Amino acid sequence: MERDLKPPRDGEERLGYDPAAQAEAGLHFIGVIRSDWREGTAPKNLRLAREQGGGNARVELKPEFAPALKGLEPGGWIMLLYWTGEARRDLLVQRPRHADGPRGTFALRSPARPNPVALGCVRIEAIEDATVHIDATDAFDGTPVVDIKPWIETVDRPPE
Amino acid sequence: MERDLKPPRDGEERLGYDPAAQAEAGLHFIGVIRSDWREGTAPKNLRLAREQGGGNARVELKPEFAPALKGLEPGGWIMLLYWTGEARRDLLVQRPRHADGPRGTFALRSPARPNPVALGCVRIEAIEDATVHIDATDAFDGTPVVDIKPWIETVDRPPE
Repeated sequence: MERDLKPPRDGEERLGYDPAAQAEAGLHFIGVIRSDWREGTAPKNLRLAREQGGGNARVELKPEFAPALKGLEPGGWIMLLYWTGEARRDLLVQRPRHADGPRGTFALRSPARPNPVALGCVRIEAIEDATVHIDATDAFDGTPVVDIKPWIETVDRPPE
Repeated sequence: MERDLKPPRDGEERLGYDPAAQAEAGLHFIGVIRSDWREGTAPKNLRLAREQGGGNARVELKPEFAPALKGLEPGGWIMLLYWTGEARRDLLVQRPRHADGPRGTFALRSPARPNPVALGCVRIEAIEDATVHIDATDAFDGTPVVDIKPWIETVDRPPE
């Protein structure tokens, strides 16, 4: 895993170790996201990705996982979990450019976090074999995928 | 990691390998969930957990992660990601008791999945040092925690 070793920005705080070097459980990626975005030019979030047309987004599963899609249908909404593991994992307090001051990693959606599992709610457009076409992604082409779950109102949003 | 080695139920399909044995990235847990639930008696989902009073739920972070909470406040909603790694990870098609037939793992919120990262939207009740009190959990006491993220409407639910 490549690491960004830039010095901390003003106001940043770091852990005294790299979480990547102290693994307690392992992920086995189920596939990759395909998109028109490249590293460094991908939209900052899913809302901006939709504004930019979605990025021709799809999830290409490893072929052996195709049976696990049974029951998902076009028009349905899923939670897509993906791995943003190229960012550093030891930042506790960050200073994003959009924020007015330092903020804790757990109060941010930054890809730089101890366990860089990103998530977003996307719509299924079509399913062909092991490929799931989705309405949008903010992930660059080749981003590893961790999980797909059906979006469920009583679990994934604040109760009314 | 303990494995449930029960034979498949009728209609189940399995991978030819255990994803746990083919890790491509590592998780370092940031803490554990504390609750009144024990393995085997925990509510099946967050809605049922709320109906049962929430379970005296809180997240106990490892102390070194406390600074990463800066900016989170009581009353705010978070996405809590946690590890249900005691279930088997090789099920592609499952037959849950509540369903009328077999369904793909990615169409279910079952804890048995290739990468058992569960998630739910919960409200912050209070924060004391490295402990975050939350309104409810369906996780049993001691469940490892993967991440905390602020819930964001434009990312975590279908657009209006």
